Amino acid sequence: MSKKFNVAILGATGLVGRNMLKVLIENNFPINQLRLLASERSAGAEVEYLGEKIKVEAVNENSFDGIDLALFSPGKTAAIKWAPIAVKAGAIVVDNSSGWRMDPEVPLVVPEVNPNHLQNHQGIIANPNCSTIQMVVALKPLSDKFGLKRVVVSTYQSITGAGQNGINHLNAELEGKEPEKRISKHKIAFNTVFHSIDNPNGYSEEEIKMILETRKIMDLPDLKISVTCVRVPVIGGHGESINIELEKPATIDEVREALGNFPGLITIDNPLEGEYPTVQLADGTNPVYVGRIRKDDSVENGFNIWVVADNVRKGAATNAVQIAEELIKLGVLK
Amino acid sequence: MSKKFNVAILGATGLVGRNMLKVLIENNFPINQLRLLASERSAGAEVEYLGEKIKVEAVNENSFDGIDLALFSPGKTAAIKWAPIAVKAGAIVVDNSSGWRMDPEVPLVVPEVNPNHLQNHQGIIANPNCSTIQMVVALKPLSDKFGLKRVVVSTYQSITGAGQNGINHLNAELEGKEPEKRISKHKIAFNTVFHSIDNPNGYSEEEIKMILETRKIMDLPDLKISVTCVRVPVIGGHGESINIELEKPATIDEVREALGNFPGLITIDNPLEGEYPTVQLADGTNPVYVGRIRKDDSVENGFNIWVVADNVRKGAATNAVQIAEELIKLGVLK
Repeated sequence: MSKKFNVAILGATGLVGRNMLKVLIENNFPINQLRLLASERSAGAEVEYLGEKIKVEAVNENSFDGIDLALFSPGKTAAIKWAPIAVKAGAIVVDNSSGWRMDPEVPLVVPEVNPNHLQNHQGIIANPNCSTIQMVVALKPLSDKFGLKRVVVSTYQSITGAGQNGINHLNAELEGKEPEKRISKHKIAFNTVFHSIDNPNGYSEEEIKMILETRKIMDLPDLKISVTCVRVPVIGGHGESINIELEKPATIDEVREALGNFPGLITIDNPLEGEYPTVQLADGTNPVYVGRIRKDDSVENGFNIWVVADNVRKGAATNAVQIAEELIKLGVLK
Repeated sequence: MSKKFNVAILGATGLVGRNMLKVLIENNFPINQLRLLASERSAGAEVEYLGEKIKVEAVNENSFDGIDLALFSPGKTAAIKWAPIAVKAGAIVVDNSSGWRMDPEVPLVVPEVNPNHLQNHQGIIANPNCSTIQMVVALKPLSDKFGLKRVVVSTYQSITGAGQNGINHLNAELEGKEPEKRISKHKIAFNTVFHSIDNPNGYSEEEIKMILETRKIMDLPDLKISVTCVRVPVIGGHGESINIELEKPATIDEVREALGNFPGLITIDNPLEGEYPTVQLADGTNPVYVGRIRKDDSVENGFNIWVVADNVRKGAATNAVQIAEELIKLGVLK
C-alpha cells in the first residue's frame, strides 16, 4: 500500500480553500489525517469531509506538528508568517498567496510547465497567480517549439478572482442591494473594472504579477510581455485574449498541433459552428482550454489565441493539488 | 432664422433608431418635419416626440419624398434596398448598417476623425461599426502626432451591441427563463462569447469590420492591426484594451497631451485613486473616454490605453447625428 499523508489546509473556509479540499477528494489524494485551519475569525466553522464534519481550527504555532503537506490559501501576510513555521514543523508548504512567489529560493510551479523547478525547493512552493497559470500552460508548447518574441495579453477575469467577497458584491448589486463589503469602488454588475492599482507607472498589481511570474515560471527572464487585466461580471473562469509573436515561422496547423499535444490543454476551435471555449464551459473543471486560434497578419509570425480556465480550480486549488501530486511522483513528498 | 430639415428615421423602433431620435432632440437638431419609418412588422408603433405621439409608418417607395435627411438603422439588407430610393427622392442618407460601409463611393465617417471625407459623398454616408468609432477617436491624435506602426486591440463589448434582442436574452437568463430569441447559442449571463464567425480564417465579421473600417476612416490602407472581439455581460458601452506601437518616440506625457487635446475624447486616468473609464460611466453619454494610459516596455514606442464609449450613442446614434450636423456645417445639407 502506498503511503498516505497528513494534510493541512490553511484558509480552509475561503473559496480557494474549500476548492482545495474538493479537488483533494476528487483526485483521491492519499490523505491520512486532514487538518483544516483558518484565522481566529473563521475558526469554529464545520466543513464536511467524506461524510464527517470537521471543525476548522484557529491556526497556531503547533498547528503543523505532524503535517506532511500544508496547502495554503490565506492572505499574503498570514502566508508570510505561517509558512516558515509549517516548514520548521516538517511540512512541505504549497502556498497560493502572492507572499512567496517572487522569492528566489521558492519555486513557482505549474506542473505541466516547470515541474523541474520543484527539485530545488526549501520547503515552500508557490502556486502562481490564476491568470498567469492558464496563460503559461498555453504559451509553453509554443515557446518550446517556436520561441516567443513578444506576448500581448488582455484578460477577462471572473468576479470569483476576488473570492467570496467578489461573489457577494456582484450578487448584492444584482439584487439591488448595497454590498456589505465592496471589492471595487465602482459598480461591478454589468460593468468593467480594474484590479487595484498602486504602482506609479499605472500598472495594477495583477498586471505586474502576470509579467514577473510568467518570466520566472518559463525561465524567460527577458520575455517581452504586455499585460492589461480587466475584471468583468463573469463567473466560472478567466478569459484571456493573447497575441503572440513567435521567434520562428510556423503555420497555423503547426501551432494547432503544438497546442493540441500539450498536457492539461484542451483545444475547442470550431468557430464556424460557434464552438470555442467560454468561461462558463470552464466552470468547475480542471483543464485549460484554448480556441480561436488565428493567424495575425499584422506582424511576422503572429498568432491570436483565446485561453480560458476555471480560475478557482486550475488557477488556484487544482494547480496546488497537482503540485502536491507531482511532489509525490518525484519522491520529494514521501 | 436658419433652415429646418425634413428628417426621416428608418428603423425607428430599434434600439439605435430610438436613440437617434433621443440625440436629435437633445442636440436641438433643426427638424421641420419628422417621419418615423420601419419594416411592415414594426409599423404602427407609436413613438413620443416632444409631447406628441408619432405613428411609425411602414417604409415604402414614397416614404422619402420631401425628406432632406434620412437616418438609417435597419438591417443590412433593408439598408441596401432603401438607401438608393431615399437618395433618388433627394435625401442624404446616413446609414448605420454595414451595408454601405466598404463601398468605395461611400464615405465612412467619424466627424472628429475624417470630416473631410464628407465632401465626396454621392448621397449615402456610412456610420462605422460601434467598436471602430470609439477606437479611431483615440487612435487619430496619436496617428497624427507620432504615426501608428501597429495596433493590437481586444474588445469588451456590451450586450446592447446586439440590440434589444441582446438585452432581452441577457435579462431572460438573469431571471432564469429561456430567452425567446437568442443572440448566441451559448449562455451570455456571467459568460464570455464571440460574435458569429463565418470567415474560414476564423475571424468574426465584427473583427474584420474593425480592421477594414479603421483603415478606410483613417486613410491608412496598410495599417497593421490585430483585432479580437469579445462580448461580455456588460451594459452601457464597449471597453477596448488597445496596445499601440508608435512610429516615432513619445513620452507618456506627450501621449497624454495628444489624447487630452482631441475633441470628443475625455481622459479619466487617476488609477491610484481607482479613477478610470468604465462602461457604466459611459452609459447614456456621448463622448469617448480614455484611461489607463501606460508605457509598454515590451516594444519600442509602445503604449497601452483603455477606451470606452456608449456603443449605442457614440458608437451609433450620436455619431450619425454628428455626421448630419457636420453636413449642415459644411453646407452639404442645405
